[in-house]
Amino acid sequence: MDATIDLISDMGYHRVSIESIAAKAGVGKATVYRWWPTKARLVVEALGSRLEIAPVVSTGELRVDVRALVHSAIEIFTKSPLSHVLPEMATDLDDDPEARAELIRFLGPARAGNLSLLYSAAGRSELPHDVDAGLLLDLICGTVLYRRLLGRRVNSVTVDQIADLIVDRCLPRSVSGFSPTA
Amino acid sequence: MDATIDLISDMGYHRVSIESIAAKAGVGKATVYRWWPTKARLVVEALGSRLEIAPVVSTGELRVDVRALVHSAIEIFTKSPLSHVLPEMATDLDDDPEARAELIRFLGPARAGNLSLLYSAAGRSELPHDVDAGLLLDLICGTVLYRRLLGRRVNSVTVDQIADLIVDRCLPRSVSGFSPTA
Repeated sequence: MDATIDLISDMGYHRVSIESIAAKAGVGKATVYRWWPTKARLVVEALGSRLEIAPVVSTGELRVDVRALVHSAIEIFTKSPLSHVLPEMATDLDDDPEARAELIRFLGPARAGNLSLLYSAAGRSELPHDVDAGLLLDLICGTVLYRRLLGRRVNSVTVDQIADLIVDRCLPRSVSGFSPTA
Repeated sequence: MDATIDLISDMGYHRVSIESIAAKAGVGKATVYRWWPTKARLVVEALGSRLEIAPVVSTGELRVDVRALVHSAIEIFTKSPLSHVLPEMATDLDDDPEARAELIRFLGPARAGNLSLLYSAAGRSELPHDVDAGLLLDLICGTVLYRRLLGRRVNSVTVDQIADLIVDRCLPRSVSGFSPTA
């Protein structure tokens, strides 16, 4: 597991072979395949066992909490191994429903905690009672991940823009001193 | 170029080698490397020369136009070769600024057209005059792409939810008859 995380963190998902993981772990390739039928499953399990993806701890104040959600997405999707490993696995996940299910299980507790935080704000009437909190979380993660893929800036301006959108329902503005993100 | 698109459409970016592209095109590997120093540049140029990514044609009505933007993102990020090739290139693009610049050039005309559509709505005061239209486009594309990576539903409900958010500034609701997207 450590060998897997070390290698994919350095090199990315696709440049690492099962052979090189087995070699680094000091075991045979057949041993690896006995436990993990595909590279996608091995990598997802390694991420699950070695990467801490924690939910945001609610402060009870929606703006603070939403800002923390965006910060957390920036940590995960611009800095952690998931930032490149998750997108790189796109085709493999399409072909490997068990690996995708394992990925969703691994991300599940953090997601559930973050959903709880948003529904708790809905309980205080700070969000609509029937808000689709799952879509809001995907919007936060997706915006950050997409900008990272194209090499576009993700910073404190982005945090403000997304918090303003969700908390105040203000569409994102171009901030003076920054050029529009065209 | 056709050989490249055919192979990556079928197999994904990482399972295709320069060798297999050269073989399918009936040329030597050295010939391919003479023109394209990296696989990322070859693939981005092939996408640019063979894939039509058109901007949405404005109707002058914001809701219709935003719905068309979301539909267009769904076409591109759940159906076209870009849907898996772009995420799969994550690590290679980080290491290959020329390939990323070429990708941004290839996506540029469609993005410029879509920015024009949103700024035109701002000109009619249907959006804030200083709206960050680039972020709105990234939000639309990113939400669709992220949900596709995790295998979550992207459909007409998603189109309605994003249009309601941008046009009416209503946060996404869980639609009756659909379970929340937890």
